[in-house]
Amino acid sequence: MQSNDAASSLIQVEQRMRSLVTHDVGVAGEAAVLHLSAGGSRIRARLALHACSALRVPHDQAVAVAAACELLHNASLVHDDLQDRDTQRRGLDTVWRRHGDAAAICVGDLLLSAAYGALAPTGAAAGQLITRMHQRVGTVIRGQCDDLALQGAKLNSLYTYERVAQGKSAPLLILPLELALALAGRIDAISAAVEAGSLFAVGYQAADDLDDVERDALNEEINIVAVLAARGERQPREAARALAIERFQQCLAAAARLPQDSGQLMATQARRHVAMLTQTRVPA
Amino acid sequence: MQSNDAASSLIQVEQRMRSLVTHDVGVAGEAAVLHLSAGGSRIRARLALHACSALRVPHDQAVAVAAACELLHNASLVHDDLQDRDTQRRGLDTVWRRHGDAAAICVGDLLLSAAYGALAPTGAAAGQLITRMHQRVGTVIRGQCDDLALQGAKLNSLYTYERVAQGKSAPLLILPLELALALAGRIDAISAAVEAGSLFAVGYQAADDLDDVERDALNEEINIVAVLAARGERQPREAARALAIERFQQCLAAAARLPQDSGQLMATQARRHVAMLTQTRVPA
Repeated sequence: MQSNDAASSLIQVEQRMRSLVTHDVGVAGEAAVLHLSAGGSRIRARLALHACSALRVPHDQAVAVAAACELLHNASLVHDDLQDRDTQRRGLDTVWRRHGDAAAICVGDLLLSAAYGALAPTGAAAGQLITRMHQRVGTVIRGQCDDLALQGAKLNSLYTYERVAQGKSAPLLILPLELALALAGRIDAISAAVEAGSLFAVGYQAADDLDDVERDALNEEINIVAVLAARGERQPREAARALAIERFQQCLAAAARLPQDSGQLMATQARRHVAMLTQTRVPA
Repeated sequence: MQSNDAASSLIQVEQRMRSLVTHDVGVAGEAAVLHLSAGGSRIRARLALHACSALRVPHDQAVAVAAACELLHNASLVHDDLQDRDTQRRGLDTVWRRHGDAAAICVGDLLLSAAYGALAPTGAAAGQLITRMHQRVGTVIRGQCDDLALQGAKLNSLYTYERVAQGKSAPLLILPLELALALAGRIDAISAAVEAGSLFAVGYQAADDLDDVERDALNEEINIVAVLAARGERQPREAARALAIERFQQCLAAAARLPQDSGQLMATQARRHVAMLTQTRVPA
């Protein structure tokens, strides 16, 4: 996709998202628009637009899928911030902090409903896309519950760490590729998308943890460095960095198996993370 | 619809609802099943099944729409109970009370997502149904926000009372009829469904308020009797009863305009409420 095409498609996705939360919804709609206006990387929308373009999915369906994935992600952010009592997001007070708990529940609900509303223009494919989306939402919810249940626990299982990291983030990284592949009739390739998204999720979480070691220790939140230290690792930061790099490199291999270069943007992102992890000097 | 057909269809709706919240969703899925197992009138499912049957909508689509409406209603109950800090529902502890706030957010999200998931089998119509459902969800959310904003306020506007009552309950009473009419290609009749559902919602809320005058006064919750008293009505209970009866009778007239007797079950329910309101001796 040309970069000016990509930019104009992203603007259409933003417009679509806003139009889905501003029909007669009062303060919840205003709060949702404010939340969306704070921006974010829009990586899920970009993954969907890129994959749809590579797979020759019609443009209006691409915008629909991109808006759906991004709305879903933002719904989960609003409810997660409330559950975790996070106060800041993208430089703004979080929705619960600004509007109260009850309003934050409403705003997350509105964004979640809008995500499904966004799929309406996909026509005959809508049924299949709904089913796939609901399946991934279920997995996200399971991941969030697992994460909440483990808060304060001293985790020393790398398997559990990776399972929780995957549960929380992988479904909504897989979904943009999955819906694009489904629209292109390439369900044979969805397993590669699942693999790539799951590996990216673990790599990303581990890289993110490396930036937050002290804060997570203070808040008793799960962090890969603490997990590796609890397993007796002598140089847990170095080991965490190696794990993150390994997962991103495995992600690259899986993304390369996606048809018609539809995994290219995820691969680019993974490569960027590897470069950052390789350049950063990690204290021992 | 024969009553044994209706009973067997309702069992299919129950099975469909459960199957949509038990795919790999852990504790949230278990809590959702427990919540659903407490029963309830299932009036929204029954309205959908009845209207679909009258309008000759294929059976699998009828079950899909009925499950969707009922899941949506239950999603709203779980989140409303949390927002209102209600502790009991259908003789059980509410979800937040039993599992905590964070889990209740997850359970409501799961039920909301499942409501859309339920629409998957409606095939080519799914896009239109999603759009209609999202529209009604937006209105419910607006109603809930309005209701929360008015908590503790001394309301003396009958217009506002009716608007809030409609906002909270009408959309999910309209939706079963609306989706059935949409599937039958009778969108010309949806305005009558909107009218019937809105009038039923106000009648129902007023009748419900008559049972809760003292409790609502204690909890500073909006109650039709208090609204009428604040407006200088000498016999506010009697006036509230008259208003409820009038709305149910107007609902009967609107429901009668629905094609092929598809509004019959709503009419039966409205008539039952009128009979109860007429028989009850209301203290002056």
